[in-house]
Amino acid sequence: MLLLSKTKIPKSNTFLTATTIAIDAMGGDYGPPVTVPAALEILAKYPEIHLILVGDSSVLKNALDSRQYDGSRLSILHSSQQVEMDEQPSQALRTKKDSSMRVAINQLKEGKAQACVSAGNTGALMATARFVLKTLPGIDRPAIISTFPTINPNKNVRMLDLGANVDSSAENLVQFAVMGSVLASAVDNISNPKIYLLNIGEEEIKGNEQVKQTAQLLLNAKLLNFAGYIEGDALHSGEADVVVCDGFVGNVALKTTEGVARFIARMMKEAFMRNFLTQLVGLLVKPVLKSFIKRIDPGRYNGATFIGLNGTVVKSHGGANIQAFSRAIEEAVIGVEKNVPERIRHEVEQLLKSS
Amino acid sequence: MLLLSKTKIPKSNTFLTATTIAIDAMGGDYGPPVTVPAALEILAKYPEIHLILVGDSSVLKNALDSRQYDGSRLSILHSSQQVEMDEQPSQALRTKKDSSMRVAINQLKEGKAQACVSAGNTGALMATARFVLKTLPGIDRPAIISTFPTINPNKNVRMLDLGANVDSSAENLVQFAVMGSVLASAVDNISNPKIYLLNIGEEEIKGNEQVKQTAQLLLNAKLLNFAGYIEGDALHSGEADVVVCDGFVGNVALKTTEGVARFIARMMKEAFMRNFLTQLVGLLVKPVLKSFIKRIDPGRYNGATFIGLNGTVVKSHGGANIQAFSRAIEEAVIGVEKNVPERIRHEVEQLLKSS
Repeated sequence: MLLLSKTKIPKSNTFLTATTIAIDAMGGDYGPPVTVPAALEILAKYPEIHLILVGDSSVLKNALDSRQYDGSRLSILHSSQQVEMDEQPSQALRTKKDSSMRVAINQLKEGKAQACVSAGNTGALMATARFVLKTLPGIDRPAIISTFPTINPNKNVRMLDLGANVDSSAENLVQFAVMGSVLASAVDNISNPKIYLLNIGEEEIKGNEQVKQTAQLLLNAKLLNFAGYIEGDALHSGEADVVVCDGFVGNVALKTTEGVARFIARMMKEAFMRNFLTQLVGLLVKPVLKSFIKRIDPGRYNGATFIGLNGTVVKSHGGANIQAFSRAIEEAVIGVEKNVPERIRHEVEQLLKSS
Repeated sequence: MLLLSKTKIPKSNTFLTATTIAIDAMGGDYGPPVTVPAALEILAKYPEIHLILVGDSSVLKNALDSRQYDGSRLSILHSSQQVEMDEQPSQALRTKKDSSMRVAINQLKEGKAQACVSAGNTGALMATARFVLKTLPGIDRPAIISTFPTINPNKNVRMLDLGANVDSSAENLVQFAVMGSVLASAVDNISNPKIYLLNIGEEEIKGNEQVKQTAQLLLNAKLLNFAGYIEGDALHSGEADVVVCDGFVGNVALKTTEGVARFIARMMKEAFMRNFLTQLVGLLVKPVLKSFIKRIDPGRYNGATFIGLNGTVVKSHGGANIQAFSRAIEEAVIGVEKNVPERIRHEVEQLLKSS
């Protein structure tokens, strides 16, 4: 049920011409206190974008109360359920058919939105998106792709798969390469993006079977700019535009990166807390650290895209704050405006034709 | 040929009663300028230890010239070849039978040393060690194990395999768990070490087949203290005593850790170099950063052990400095004195009996 926010409900054909993003407003560790202000930030920043907030309408109306926004571009869509952060994806799929997450994804299927953003349970989001939207023709499995900073301040790297698939075949990995390449060229405006395959460096055993087979296929795929193997210590070196790996390996690399960054941050803090003198130095150092943290701030990079589906689905970090969640919505906006799913469909078609 | 250094060559039976470490003195990015002073540091620190420096005798004699040391515990063993850092392991194995690396490993087989330390080509060292020494009974494949710091300053974590094996079977991973557990209890004095299996967190797809099967086997292995799954972001949390994973995944996690640490260090440096004021603050901050870097200094953790072989082989980082290389020798000393290979043999026997 589409509910009135502050103005009349826009007609569905208004939605069809404009970019519309469905937001799972109940998802994430905080729900509406984060999702609603983030949505309003996006409305203010992008004067053409329409948003649908999906969730408990009374809660959402409360959250919107007394706030200024362009009501003609924001609507509330009521849903009676919510997927818990620790819920089994299979159970969510079976028993939460009126969850904010499911209803938001349904909007894509029904053509009422072109993208969906959720900070909810990753597994449930992936299972639901896959079930409702299906994969694009030529793509066997969707993947999770995200952006990481590099030592080159003007260059990021996109990496996939970050955990949607384990035990990927070489063919799956080639499809990931195509999708990563499309995202890097369409969204990051990189012509002929350099694609690397994540591998390990010991000569004798260079790579497992999966990697060796994938490299062979990528070498044959003339449409792709396959640049070779990359090791874990070069992920942030700025060499690669796209790094391809199995979801198990990618998720370990992603989580390890988070863990190391947190570990170092904590060690630093402890080093500055040691005594009065170090605390004093710590105060002086704060602005420098702040500019540094801004540079590697996960909020700036929030929003992993589920790629390879009929529609754009962006997963925000569960603990995202307002700024980070609005960054995730932005990622969805860009994905829609750059027409990513259609481009992937086209590229895969070309690749299949050429091989 | 065993050469005289400054005193008479000790008789081989002197060697057999004392702990003797064979050092590939030519290996690593620097060779003798690092390996020789590191060896002398160890001689000074451990008055019972004997060392054999293997390599070009004239170079080594030169490096020892004018230095003070207890010549009764140090000997030079001449070898005419050297394995290059980028040489194919299979080629080194075939054509470098008189390399410093090979001759050093031979000392273990011949009972003239109980451990070998090399900063040379990892792949060649593993291939040679495996070929010459063979694996312990009940161990199908050796693994690479190393130590990492955690947020708990009094606790490290050991992780294996870091790259010796790819496409490990569940049985291989269980053997890794046994070996890690032995090292943690024998060397780190942890009673009943908590063993975790590296996994990814998405519920729907929790783990690949390899991990799921391994978990089942570990749950049945009553002799091991299997504590469950761990994600990449908790590697440094101090929860685990031992983390077990496939060598491909472990190597990616290891290299990613190195890459992130280097990336953050570089960003920090840039942040402090920005302008005169930040440079000034940087000067003040130096001692604090120094104490911090000391805490996470790879030199303190240098020395990955090749575990599961008939003998202790320690691989130092190729770029190790004197302090780091002597840390690697120390790792070998401890491995020998704690009788790690014999303990592994015993534990694997027990495990096989109980299952």
